[in-house]
Amino acid sequence: MPRTAGKHHITASISPFADVYAVILAGGSGTRFWPLSRRARPKQLLKLFGKQSLLQQTAQRLRGLVPPERTYVLTNTTIQQEARRQLPAVPRQQIIAEPTSRNTAPAISLAAFEIARRDPQGIMIVLPSDHIIAKPEVFRQALAAGCRAAEQGRSVVIGIKPMRPETGFGYIRLGEQESRDGKIAISKVIQFVEKPPMARARQYVRSGKYLWNGGMFIWKASTLISNLECYQPQMAAALRRIVSAGGIRSPKALRRLYPRLENISIDYALMEKISDVWAVPVDMGWSDVGSWAAAYELYSKDTDQNVCPSPAYLLDCRQNMIVSSKKFVGAAGIENLVIVETNDALLVCSQDRSQDVGKIVKELERRGMKDLL
Amino acid sequence: MPRTAGKHHITASISPFADVYAVILAGGSGTRFWPLSRRARPKQLLKLFGKQSLLQQTAQRLRGLVPPERTYVLTNTTIQQEARRQLPAVPRQQIIAEPTSRNTAPAISLAAFEIARRDPQGIMIVLPSDHIIAKPEVFRQALAAGCRAAEQGRSVVIGIKPMRPETGFGYIRLGEQESRDGKIAISKVIQFVEKPPMARARQYVRSGKYLWNGGMFIWKASTLISNLECYQPQMAAALRRIVSAGGIRSPKALRRLYPRLENISIDYALMEKISDVWAVPVDMGWSDVGSWAAAYELYSKDTDQNVCPSPAYLLDCRQNMIVSSKKFVGAAGIENLVIVETNDALLVCSQDRSQDVGKIVKELERRGMKDLL
Repeated sequence: MPRTAGKHHITASISPFADVYAVILAGGSGTRFWPLSRRARPKQLLKLFGKQSLLQQTAQRLRGLVPPERTYVLTNTTIQQEARRQLPAVPRQQIIAEPTSRNTAPAISLAAFEIARRDPQGIMIVLPSDHIIAKPEVFRQALAAGCRAAEQGRSVVIGIKPMRPETGFGYIRLGEQESRDGKIAISKVIQFVEKPPMARARQYVRSGKYLWNGGMFIWKASTLISNLECYQPQMAAALRRIVSAGGIRSPKALRRLYPRLENISIDYALMEKISDVWAVPVDMGWSDVGSWAAAYELYSKDTDQNVCPSPAYLLDCRQNMIVSSKKFVGAAGIENLVIVETNDALLVCSQDRSQDVGKIVKELERRGMKDLL
Repeated sequence: MPRTAGKHHITASISPFADVYAVILAGGSGTRFWPLSRRARPKQLLKLFGKQSLLQQTAQRLRGLVPPERTYVLTNTTIQQEARRQLPAVPRQQIIAEPTSRNTAPAISLAAFEIARRDPQGIMIVLPSDHIIAKPEVFRQALAAGCRAAEQGRSVVIGIKPMRPETGFGYIRLGEQESRDGKIAISKVIQFVEKPPMARARQYVRSGKYLWNGGMFIWKASTLISNLECYQPQMAAALRRIVSAGGIRSPKALRRLYPRLENISIDYALMEKISDVWAVPVDMGWSDVGSWAAAYELYSKDTDQNVCPSPAYLLDCRQNMIVSSKKFVGAAGIENLVIVETNDALLVCSQDRSQDVGKIVKELERRGMKDLL
């Protein structure tokens, strides 16, 4: 429904951005937190940190900026029900299941069409659902600055100030020209750079001219659609057909038409092609929590740098993470291990091998051990 | 009941030693196999190797030498029922519970009085219940040689040829004089030596004049009682009172009188004092399986020297032992670990720290976590 003048007035008193919508991407079925994460219980739905899942924390973090009734969540058919259960304040029909995973461009664009239909002036904030942000207030300030830029028709990416020469992320190269939003200096983006080798990553961090691309974007929905029609006309046309057939309100139309969309990320499909992209730099204690070792960094530790929430006796043990929800843990003389135990599986690896968890999951797929996936 | 001439004749055809009785010591509540072993399920009752428990294997190993009806098993009140269940062929009343643990001297002596009452010529073989013997035929030959020496009134210890300079065992120092029993050279024992430091253990092994003391003894019951009356007259008198009050057939008498006996090992109480002790040396693939690391040595391994009976995917893992009865095990980049998981506990330690399992159990005692003991 298009916004009425009256409604505008009321919401304006809650937030300076009555037109702002959130699009939370929660369709991922990551394997990096196996055996705790499973297809039906992916990372974003897990309560890895505190009493709320990462998805719930993502929604919570928008408080005061985007209310639940202007929040959209893109999930898949396996987890849609659980996502609805976790986010009871978000209208059910706005927690959408992609019939098949088609990467971020189709998902974000589908949401853009819906938001533009509902509110032609609508600004959309696109956010992953499985990241940690230690300083939510700083994050919200960055979003606010991004929204103000988006209001002017700019495409905005929230860029994370790099904390280390990380080879696992994409980078954003900043141009010289800057505009300001209060204390925040907004820079033109001159390039999206794929995951670099270590030497290049080091250069990037030293130069001060690169930010991490954390997959957080802000546009007017209408800006995104214009760009889509320019750079991805086929996808734009296909999406218009979905909208004509009922859009997000017709699971049947989605099942039939959505799988035909191109499987492509928003970065490839649009961001690398659009000339008018701006970056809002932010230092907000961000982590994509991409492995058990990354999670280890975020937990509070005992004096020997162990993470072990269970009752335990750890004798000469250092820098281990031991997750065993109900069992007593006895350990002696171990170091730098990740140990995770669930009802049906036991993971043990050295911390520097925690990326290999994905290989274990692949092997389970190969063996057809579906119960463990 | 004293043996009759007829019975003697019949049993003599089964075994050359109609008078031989076995006394299996199964009262131990070892902690070294925690979390698999517990007070109610100590090592000797566990099926650590094969389908039979170590206790069952101990009884089984005597086949052809000592029948079940001449076998006595000393247990404690916690495990008596389970021991009876595991050894259905042994008469129930011969599986005795010590009301309190009083070490080996009282237990063995109690059995001696019972056997002497039943058969004044009775020879008793005393055996621990929690050891592994890879060559049972060699073991039985040693026992037979020991029985022949015991028939002559000698006190006999089965001595294990040392395989390494072990500091965790007591040693037996052999004198020069020897007698022979077929291929077996039986030596006079001139000293029982306590657990030595490493340098001394090395000397012992090099000298060829020392054997390991594995706690296996053979005497006539009457020989033991004579020695007890000579060297431990108080204990002998106390045991006579127990026998008068009903002996092993009166749990009430045992409960009242047994706890008053001195807590002392047969080595201290008698073996170190008796002059006429003889050692039968044997090389029988013996292990006391004193730790998870010792158990690891006995299991069959994969090409990377891992022991893991569960379904598993082990990526670059070497020399680990992973016991998780039902769970899928995924592991990457780990080495030399012992990991044991049960319904209520998880143990992780490096193999060279598997002796520290006892410390973990002590800590559980200190915290009063009885369910885990």
